[in-house]
Order: sequence, then structure tokens, then C-alpha cells
Amino acid sequence: MTNRQIVVASLPQGALGPEHFELREAETPAPQDGEVLLRTILMSIDAANRSWMQGATYRDAVNAGDAMPTYAICEVMESKSPRLAPGDIVATESVWADHVTRAAHKVQKLPKVQPLSHLLSVYGIAGKTAFHGLMQIGQPLAGETIVVSAAAGSVGGYVGQIGKALGCRVVGIAGGHEKCAFVTKELGFDACIDYRAGGIFKALKAACPNGVDVYFDNVGGDILETTLALMNERGRVVCCGAISQYDTTNPTGPRNLPGVVVVKRLRMEGFIVMDFARDDAKATRALQAWVQQGKIQVTEDIVEGLENAPQALIGLLKGDNTGKRMVRVGPDP
Amino acid sequence: MTNRQIVVASLPQGALGPEHFELREAETPAPQDGEVLLRTILMSIDAANRSWMQGATYRDAVNAGDAMPTYAICEVMESKSPRLAPGDIVATESVWADHVTRAAHKVQKLPKVQPLSHLLSVYGIAGKTAFHGLMQIGQPLAGETIVVSAAAGSVGGYVGQIGKALGCRVVGIAGGHEKCAFVTKELGFDACIDYRAGGIFKALKAACPNGVDVYFDNVGGDILETTLALMNERGRVVCCGAISQYDTTNPTGPRNLPGVVVVKRLRMEGFIVMDFARDDAKATRALQAWVQQGKIQVTEDIVEGLENAPQALIGLLKGDNTGKRMVRVGPDP
Repeated sequence: MTNRQIVVASLPQGALGPEHFELREAETPAPQDGEVLLRTILMSIDAANRSWMQGATYRDAVNAGDAMPTYAICEVMESKSPRLAPGDIVATESVWADHVTRAAHKVQKLPKVQPLSHLLSVYGIAGKTAFHGLMQIGQPLAGETIVVSAAAGSVGGYVGQIGKALGCRVVGIAGGHEKCAFVTKELGFDACIDYRAGGIFKALKAACPNGVDVYFDNVGGDILETTLALMNERGRVVCCGAISQYDTTNPTGPRNLPGVVVVKRLRMEGFIVMDFARDDAKATRALQAWVQQGKIQVTEDIVEGLENAPQALIGLLKGDNTGKRMVRVGPDP
Repeated sequence: MTNRQIVVASLPQGALGPEHFELREAETPAPQDGEVLLRTILMSIDAANRSWMQGATYRDAVNAGDAMPTYAICEVMESKSPRLAPGDIVATESVWADHVTRAAHKVQKLPKVQPLSHLLSVYGIAGKTAFHGLMQIGQPLAGETIVVSAAAGSVGGYVGQIGKALGCRVVGIAGGHEKCAFVTKELGFDACIDYRAGGIFKALKAACPNGVDVYFDNVGGDILETTLALMNERGRVVCCGAISQYDTTNPTGPRNLPGVVVVKRLRMEGFIVMDFARDDAKATRALQAWVQQGKIQVTEDIVEGLENAPQALIGLLKGDNTGKRMVRVGPDP
């Protein structure tokens, strides 16, 4: 049985392209004692994948020759561990491949939700990142104004919908008229600014007549600088990502830092979703309630086929996804 | 009775110089009902004075033609309020002048500490800024490493001495060999890096073998960028000031922001000393104890004469002070 795998052929210096990846075929690995053989169903495609290519972060750096790492939902095909049985659905740190073997104690058994994609979107990394970052760091109160960048992306859309459910004014920032229309009409944001249209400071100021209390930052760069200038005293900046800075060799910092942080007594705090794992059950409970109440729309952007994973990531970095992007490698069981 | 007053002749575009100030003489004002006439004893000289010339901050902007604002210690000469009597010592928002009138309810009566200068240094803005910023935002634990910039300055020296009293490793950053020697020998820091000597990243890394847990930032700019790169996960950055960015029209931001904040899950938070006024009594109690125990040296840099206030501020921005800088306008009573 052959196993397709996509490896990093070389590390990008500037923008990521298809030339940085290579599809290889090998034999499907056999599980050893304590391991399971997994069939990949869905792979999460995240901007963070690109940042791993810039060096060691909260995980080891990705190097040339490595199979591209990913977070994935898989089905257990064969088990040499009493922990798991064939047919079980699990989440795991994995790689871009049809099949992988993993130590059974390193994978997490999941409930058999229908469809499984919801375990990567609203009940997965995207929804939990939005929930934990907004609730624990942003700490918005009803009536406050939340701004979120990459608002049509996987995390941003949930941040804004949670904010609306909490009674906040929510303003998105997204690229292009179509995405902005999606954010206001489908996701119910109060406003959405098209950063590609120019004049973002004026537009954002007009959309936030009471200033900005919480900024959920997925992008860094100029948009961070602009939003900082509109923050209210004691505002909170949730540092979730810096997508504008990943696909470049020439990063820029917000020129108003740290001055504006001092003057306005802002708090900026970074996090990754695993930091709040002890509160995951709370996040799931709240997200399920909001979905049932119709307050959260689940938006997914599923690319079909392992072979299309490189383009799925390259496109994500250019902002061509709407909702949580993932790659479907095989069918739900 | 003539009253000397220094006004802002014009706002600086680049570096502040003597040409931006003008000494004027006028009649000493007479207090109205509810007011007091004050004789200036000591004026606090702070980097923040320069930032007020850049626009509105936590206070109104300073404009050309304004008497230069300052925080001052004064003696009540004449009172038209039952709150205060001649001979009382008060602290107040004031201006660079021999005499001012103020509404009695807007000034704060002080204990008659000897010398009064301690009310501007260790028991004043400098000591309280160091205490509140470090304790409430930095939250260092014994054994952690604290880095503080402008370590020979008014706030930095107290930050480091408090850190040592708490059982931390303390590394300063200062300009020039002489200041660094003062910081380690007189103030007892474990090490002090001379940023003017170059190679600051390597030097700071060598001085912080366990990384940096708390960075007390008084300067912003390149030194902030460098220190951020050496922070440990979950590190805290106390944003107290950005002296490197005040005396310029071309500010720069740390290029590793917000990426490093996300990856290391840092918290950066700004404050001004008044934010923690409700805990001022705690700060005074702790600072008095440490002074009595010999754990805190009180360092002051007193410039004599109202007419020398412009040069005192211009020099401060170039880093020529060691310890808390103030201007003595008149003698202690």
C-alpha cells in the first residue's frame, strides 16, 4: 500500500510557492507496539504553518527534507495499543500524508461529531483560539467595541460572532469588498473595513465612534499600528498571530510602540490555544450553545485532495480563504 | 514682587534645545478665594516632559507660549482656603516658575520629610513608578531575571534595587562605562550593559544565562527589540517609557513585534504612576523599609536654579543624569 507524503523541498526566503514542496511516495508504515496506524481525513491549514518555517517557535522549526507538519483529524486503521481501536477518530500533530503512525498516548480521541470538519473549525483550533483569546485576554464587556483583523478568516469570524453574542460592537478588517460583505451580511458584524481600499485609519475611526476597547490581532504590521492609534485607555490587544509578517524576510514593527502602550496603558498579550487547554470544555460548551442558538455560523473552506495542500497554504497566506481552511485527504467514515 | 517663569517659545521638531525656551518675568500672582500662593522648592525633571510636547497624552499637549508644565514640591506662602496654611508643604502639577497660584483642593499636602527632595525621588514619582510598575505589572519572583533599561536613571535604579531586595537577578542597561560602574558598584545590580559599546545582544545574552523574565522598559526602540528577543516564555514587559522615541520625529518600532509576543506568549503593559495611586501607601511603606534596611540607596541629581531647568531637561534626554533629576528653585524651609 503506497503512502503519499508532501515534504518541504526547500525553505522559502520570501513568499512561499509550490516550488518549496515535493510529493513523495513511500510504503505505508507499520505500527509498532504502543502505536496506531492512522488514515488522514482532514488537515488544518493555518498561517502558523508558514511561521514554523521561519525558525523554532513554540515548536521545533521545520527544515528542508521534513514532511510538512500539520494538525489533523484521522481514523484509526490498526492499533497496537489498548488505548485505541480501529474506527476511532482522533486528533494529532501529524504531517501532510495519507497515512502516519503515532504513539497512541500522543493522540487525542474525539467524539464522532457530524460532520468531522466541525472538530477543526468551530469546536477545533479556530473556535477555541477565538474563544480563549477573546475571553481570557480581551475580556470584553457588553457595549465595548471589538476590532478583529483577518475577519473573514478562520479565527476572526468566530471572534466577531462571539463578540456580538456578548453584546459588543464588532468591527472587522478584511481584504476586498466580497469578504467584507460576507463578514457583515453572513456573520453579522456591525461593520467591516476593506484594508485593500486604502484610507484604513479614517474608515476604522468612523466605524468605531467610541474608540476601540479590544483589538484581536491576527495580522501585525501596518494594521496593528493603525488600530493601536485608535485604542481607548486600558484597551486590550490580543496577539494571536502576525500573518502580514510571516511570508516575508523584511518584517516591520508598529512605529507607535511602545509609546502608545504607555500613554494609553494598553495591555498586549500573546497566547497559543494550548495555553488554555484546561478550559477547553468550557469553550466547547459555550460554542455549542451559541451554534444551537443560531448566534454562530460555522464557516468552512475545504480544499479537496492531499496534493492540493501546498496551494491551500500558499493561497491562505494571500488571504484567499473565507472561513476555516482545511484539506480533505479522505472521507468521513 | 517679580516672578520668573519659563515658557515654551516654540515646539521642537527634532531634538530639544535651549532655543525652544524663554525666560519671562511678570508680577507674582495673587491668590483668589479658595486658592493658595505657592513658592516652588523643587521641580521634577522627567523624560515625560518631552513627550508632552509631541501631542496630547494622558494630559493635554504642551503648546508654544505655555509655561512649561512640571510636577513640583512647594511651600504655601499665602492661603485663601481653610484647607492649607502658610508653611505647609505640598505637591502639585505646576509650571517652571518661582511662584504659582493653585486651587487648594488640587494640591496634595505632604509630610515634612527631611530632605524634601526624597519626596520627588525615592518616595515620589521615581520610587513609586518603579515599585508599582515592577510589582503590579512585572510581578517578579525570587530567582527570576529582571532587565531594566535607563538603569542609572531615576526610575531604573529603584527598579533594580527593588528586584535585588526581592531575590532576583538584576541586569541593567545604561549609556557609558561610568554609569555602568555606578549601577553595579553603588546600586548593587548583578551586571550592567553599556549600550554605547555595541554588541548589546551578545552582552545581554551573556549577562542573562537563564533568559529574561521581566523587562522594565524605559526606552523603547532598538533596546526593546533586542531584549524582547531574549525573553523567556510568559515573560512580562513593563512599558514605563520610551525615551529613545521622544526626542525625534522619526520613531521606529521593534521589528519583532507582535511575532515574538505571540510565540513566547509575552505580556506587555503600559502604566503611569497615578494608575496605582490607591496603593501608594503600600509603596511608601515598602520603600521606607528597604531604605532603612540599607537595601535601597537614594540617588538624586539636583540642578540648582530655575534658569537651568531647560538645560536640565535637554541633558536628561541625552542621558547625562545619574539618579532622579530635579531642579532646585528655592531652599527647603
